[in-house]
Amino acid sequence: MAEAASEDLLLAAAFVSDAQYNRNIPFKTSPEAVRLYRLYNHWTMRTATYFFIFLNLSLAMFEEPAVYPLPFLVTSLVEVLCLLVFFGRLTHFARVTHRSVFWKDTKNICIMAAILLSLTDLAIYGVLRIYNMKSVRWSRIVRPIFLINFAESRQIRRAFRSIRNTLPEITYVFLLFMFSLLMFSLMALKLFGERNLQTAEGLPYFRNYLEIVFDLYVLVTTANSPDVMMPAFDFSSWYALFFIAFVIVNTYIFMSLFLAVVYNNYKKHLKNEIRKLAYMKRRKMIEAFNLLKEEEGAQFVVREARWKQLVKLVAPDISNSHRELLLHISDDEQKNFIDKKSFLQLADLLNIQVITLKIRSHPLGRWMPRVYKSAVSRFLRSMVRHRIWLHLLYTFPSEWVFLALYIIEILLKVYTYEPRAFFGKNQFWNWFDTLIIFAALTATILNTTLKSTTKYNSQQILDIVFILRVLRLIRIVDSIQRFRVIMNTLINIIPTMLTFGGLTLVVYCVFAIIGMELFHGKIQFFPANSNAPHALECGNPALKDSLFARGKYCKNNFNNFASSFIVLMELTVVNQWHVFANGFANVTAQPAKLYFIAFHIVMVIIIVNIFVSFILEAFFVEYSLEKSEVETAIEQKIQELGMGVQEDELQDEQLLENMENADHNLEGEGGSKPQSKGLVFKIASKRYRTVDALLQRMFEAEIPPEDEGPSFEEILNFSPSDALPSNRTSESAA
Amino acid sequence: MAEAASEDLLLAAAFVSDAQYNRNIPFKTSPEAVRLYRLYNHWTMRTATYFFIFLNLSLAMFEEPAVYPLPFLVTSLVEVLCLLVFFGRLTHFARVTHRSVFWKDTKNICIMAAILLSLTDLAIYGVLRIYNMKSVRWSRIVRPIFLINFAESRQIRRAFRSIRNTLPEITYVFLLFMFSLLMFSLMALKLFGERNLQTAEGLPYFRNYLEIVFDLYVLVTTANSPDVMMPAFDFSSWYALFFIAFVIVNTYIFMSLFLAVVYNNYKKHLKNEIRKLAYMKRRKMIEAFNLLKEEEGAQFVVREARWKQLVKLVAPDISNSHRELLLHISDDEQKNFIDKKSFLQLADLLNIQVITLKIRSHPLGRWMPRVYKSAVSRFLRSMVRHRIWLHLLYTFPSEWVFLALYIIEILLKVYTYEPRAFFGKNQFWNWFDTLIIFAALTATILNTTLKSTTKYNSQQILDIVFILRVLRLIRIVDSIQRFRVIMNTLINIIPTMLTFGGLTLVVYCVFAIIGMELFHGKIQFFPANSNAPHALECGNPALKDSLFARGKYCKNNFNNFASSFIVLMELTVVNQWHVFANGFANVTAQPAKLYFIAFHIVMVIIIVNIFVSFILEAFFVEYSLEKSEVETAIEQKIQELGMGVQEDELQDEQLLENMENADHNLEGEGGSKPQSKGLVFKIASKRYRTVDALLQRMFEAEIPPEDEGPSFEEILNFSPSDALPSNRTSESAA
Repeated sequence: MAEAASEDLLLAAAFVSDAQYNRNIPFKTSPEAVRLYRLYNHWTMRTATYFFIFLNLSLAMFEEPAVYPLPFLVTSLVEVLCLLVFFGRLTHFARVTHRSVFWKDTKNICIMAAILLSLTDLAIYGVLRIYNMKSVRWSRIVRPIFLINFAESRQIRRAFRSIRNTLPEITYVFLLFMFSLLMFSLMALKLFGERNLQTAEGLPYFRNYLEIVFDLYVLVTTANSPDVMMPAFDFSSWYALFFIAFVIVNTYIFMSLFLAVVYNNYKKHLKNEIRKLAYMKRRKMIEAFNLLKEEEGAQFVVREARWKQLVKLVAPDISNSHRELLLHISDDEQKNFIDKKSFLQLADLLNIQVITLKIRSHPLGRWMPRVYKSAVSRFLRSMVRHRIWLHLLYTFPSEWVFLALYIIEILLKVYTYEPRAFFGKNQFWNWFDTLIIFAALTATILNTTLKSTTKYNSQQILDIVFILRVLRLIRIVDSIQRFRVIMNTLINIIPTMLTFGGLTLVVYCVFAIIGMELFHGKIQFFPANSNAPHALECGNPALKDSLFARGKYCKNNFNNFASSFIVLMELTVVNQWHVFANGFANVTAQPAKLYFIAFHIVMVIIIVNIFVSFILEAFFVEYSLEKSEVETAIEQKIQELGMGVQEDELQDEQLLENMENADHNLEGEGGSKPQSKGLVFKIASKRYRTVDALLQRMFEAEIPPEDEGPSFEEILNFSPSDALPSNRTSESAA
Repeated sequence: MAEAASEDLLLAAAFVSDAQYNRNIPFKTSPEAVRLYRLYNHWTMRTATYFFIFLNLSLAMFEEPAVYPLPFLVTSLVEVLCLLVFFGRLTHFARVTHRSVFWKDTKNICIMAAILLSLTDLAIYGVLRIYNMKSVRWSRIVRPIFLINFAESRQIRRAFRSIRNTLPEITYVFLLFMFSLLMFSLMALKLFGERNLQTAEGLPYFRNYLEIVFDLYVLVTTANSPDVMMPAFDFSSWYALFFIAFVIVNTYIFMSLFLAVVYNNYKKHLKNEIRKLAYMKRRKMIEAFNLLKEEEGAQFVVREARWKQLVKLVAPDISNSHRELLLHISDDEQKNFIDKKSFLQLADLLNIQVITLKIRSHPLGRWMPRVYKSAVSRFLRSMVRHRIWLHLLYTFPSEWVFLALYIIEILLKVYTYEPRAFFGKNQFWNWFDTLIIFAALTATILNTTLKSTTKYNSQQILDIVFILRVLRLIRIVDSIQRFRVIMNTLINIIPTMLTFGGLTLVVYCVFAIIGMELFHGKIQFFPANSNAPHALECGNPALKDSLFARGKYCKNNFNNFASSFIVLMELTVVNQWHVFANGFANVTAQPAKLYFIAFHIVMVIIIVNIFVSFILEAFFVEYSLEKSEVETAIEQKIQELGMGVQEDELQDEQLLENMENADHNLEGEGGSKPQSKGLVFKIASKRYRTVDALLQRMFEAEIPPEDEGPSFEEILNFSPSDALPSNRTSESAA
């Protein structure tokens, strides 16, 4: 019986933990599987997986063509190791979940196929290498699959799902767009083809249909405007009308339409995902409750002791007093049990950040109380707290002295404020200051040691640090309400930027690996004043007189992984991409342009538009929040109990001062709030929530507390076209 | 008494007409003022006003520096004439509206100031000219004020209002953006300033702070990527990170933020405008009803005779049978009076398009029935109706023959289908075909007559016509549901595109006139192989070795109004704008760059973003309509009466075939639907409605029929932050 009870507890803990972190893995409920599942979700396991994914991806830096060459044996051994880790992780997952679920999930099939392909390719390549035959490591392009498909990278998968869902509609717009492009090209051929015009480079102008299509596609991206128009315009001013019509239809209307389609889908699917997450969370909490419930009068409840065991299992790191506080909120009538409604809020309760405000005095105060509390020390601390200090530092002229002063400032602050509060999770500016100092110190030290090898001047590093220091002016900007909405958007998009970073990484990896196979070594970079043959033509006579060579773009090549990334970044920015396309087509073959067109379609038309949609949505959510406050029931309850500190109302420095004042008060009164045991709940500021979290909160506030939601299967099959249960969410999300 | 009754009728007609066309002019209700108001809104008066506005604007083509020079006396006389017309129009307006309203309206003050300024400037310039003194016609930049401020251009004013409302928020984002730009520039100066690097042109790289700010501003627009990066990148690959960070922060995040702010405001204000319009319409119909109402039992009603007089006044062009049909719908229980609810719908009812379907047989059938109904003629007509015909024409090879065949096709179609149905308002493709033929014929005739003077070849015109003909393929594309949403968006945005055309015209006019004053004559275009001095440097030695001269951009100058427009168009497309800015700064002074930066901010950051917002919104409205049908009560009633033809269900050709079939049926059955008197209401297809109209319908469907709405004053003071009464509208609009 005790055995069964503890197994139920483990299972319930797994459910609550999943609800807390929004994990949606249909694990087996056998005690053994639950234990394995707990291990599967352990942070060390997840970190290790990420580590090996990035190790596997970064192998491209060390393999031929390498930035830092390593022997083939080393890279292949590392790759085998990575693949083994992935296989292990997959096996672990297979033991956690049901067999039928496991084999129905395309993620797992993808990973297995990728592992098999990589091993086969590695073996073949290795054997061919022994016989000195050159072959292509084609399996390298499957490596990003691991990044996409391991369950931890849910956000990246969602972005890919969003892309997949958008594809059909994008395709239709794209077909229309191509139709328009081909029509305009045909007209251009008829209009200009027989006029014997020449481009600024003296090449024939608009003679070949395929070249016209390419030139006009480039014009859609605006990269060759107005050059592509000039020969016709010089011939007759009226021809400008053709190009104006072209730009309006294709650049302005069609490109906006692409954004509209992508944004529309993004919005639609985001809402659906949020709905799924909210219902899944509710469902999991209900499952957990059903496992632990006992009868109490007319209702089912969870007893206090059992609840405490559960919380210890789910969040082993939190302190006793913190747990007591959670209990106090859950069981506010002190009945020694928690009813269903309160229990369902546990996951949210665990997600609320708690900081210790008065429990700890300054460590120095404990270690050497006499010195720390002396009059000099007190005076010093009140000086530091004073704003004057800040302005003094800004106006100080000498920059070497400035670095020293800067370090002293940080040290003094730590001396004055309690270190753990000073380096709290959301004390952004304190972290920022410290990081800058750290960077400056490291740079200075590295500098001094390496001075002989590089021409680097530490004065410049100091300059940069000095400039970054000026960024603290943003704090003043930030205090104006108007700027706050903008700043909030900017801060809230940072976490999701990482998703786009991942997405971009995947696309870049695939294109970089293909690009290296296609264009490796075709274009060389020579330092200025080099005597190498064809140094001015990037080592390739095919580039003579080309815009590529004239623009001195030789260093933009696919000769290694890092260079390829830079080239792809420049292609993402779009401008001059046709010069790259023409350059690389010149040194290989004309169809090479297709590579650049494909990259433009994937990266600019799809991914950049998703990024823009995301920023638009983030801004609108922030904007609608500015007016309508969204607070969950829990936050309200905490406020009612008088245990909340609304972080919004207290800027970080003020918070610290406030703490200090409270400290003095407590010292005087001898601790008048014993029930809070030195703890205050700090409700996470709106400004540090991601768009996802904000939307989910808004949605959850709309689900009635008694609504148990649909079953797991139904939730997973939600489609975006289903009506949403609430107007408010959809409106705010829209 | 009869006098008073007819005056009430005129006033009521004015209200109904205003409701029908969404005019919001607070006119005086005295009989005399109402008559003047009727004249004020007459289409001839409005057209004349537009004519003189455009005449006034186009004067810039004939004044110094002129595209087609005219003597100063002619242009100044025309200008005085235009100003007199504007003054007359304003006086007319002053007599229509209340004095207090007139003087409170900034529009009118603006117009008066503009007229006065123009006259003063003209007089001064004329006098100085007599004494041969050169001066600047600075008042020319106030000319667009007439386009903005005359009451007819409501859409353009709304766009300007939207811009004005967006400005404060844009300014905040812009300040943050400038802060970021200045910071990055400072860092760039520190990083690269002392490295003695050179650009591809051999100029010093990143030495001067102001130049760095300009270069990095250009990088934000991506126009000088990757050139601006190459010197630093060639020096060390790590420097690429600086530019990557810069592009992510400024190009991607800040530029998206500008779009978000503009779009958010656009959406917010659009909703508010729509709400105003809907309530104003309701209000006006209630005023009209109150003027005409008589007591009938417990309720107030409008008697049939009075109603008919009203409709005759409001819409004098509609036929008796059409009016009977409207009456039938309004008074569906044949009680000889119209109740309030039905009366309020009159404006919508008048807006519904009606086409005559069966009343008219083919004119040829009436003129020479024997020939037209002969077996040969019947066979021919059934041939024409057949689809095969179309395919036959497409595959025909010879293009001269094609033109002839094309004309025959159109003639045959007109022979077969009733001409007025064939050239119905929404028979887009029939119009399209006919226009192309007409264009081709005109071109061919002009060609033959002008052959001696130009080298133009009519073969090419035919080629273009042939290509345009292929656009009919869109009809096939259009029959696929997926493409239809996209096509609907594209078709519906055409009317509002004109608003943006107006907006762009205003901005272009102002910048063109300033540009001509600043840069006129500085840069000259010489045809290829010219022997003029400095022909390669656009006639200005200051441009030697500049990118401007090397790109052969000499024809992009501000030497006349038309050229200026082309340059501004190229600046709107953004690419290479820095080459223009540098070029024009070289031939004048460095601060000239500010002109180009100002244009970029106004045109690209604000107006293009509003255009994109508009397309996004249009797409979302179309998309939400695709799923949720919005039909007004009137449409439903028409459908119930069995008098509706839903044009959506019938594509134009099918419609014509359907008409023809119905014709045959009627011929057989001898007209089984006498009550429709040969008329069928064609409900305007959703695809030919503008976004505004669609949104207004959606909103009106939400106002309960008995809701009289707020008073005129309250409506005019609606602010966008007020909550909307309906969820559905806001959601769909969102």
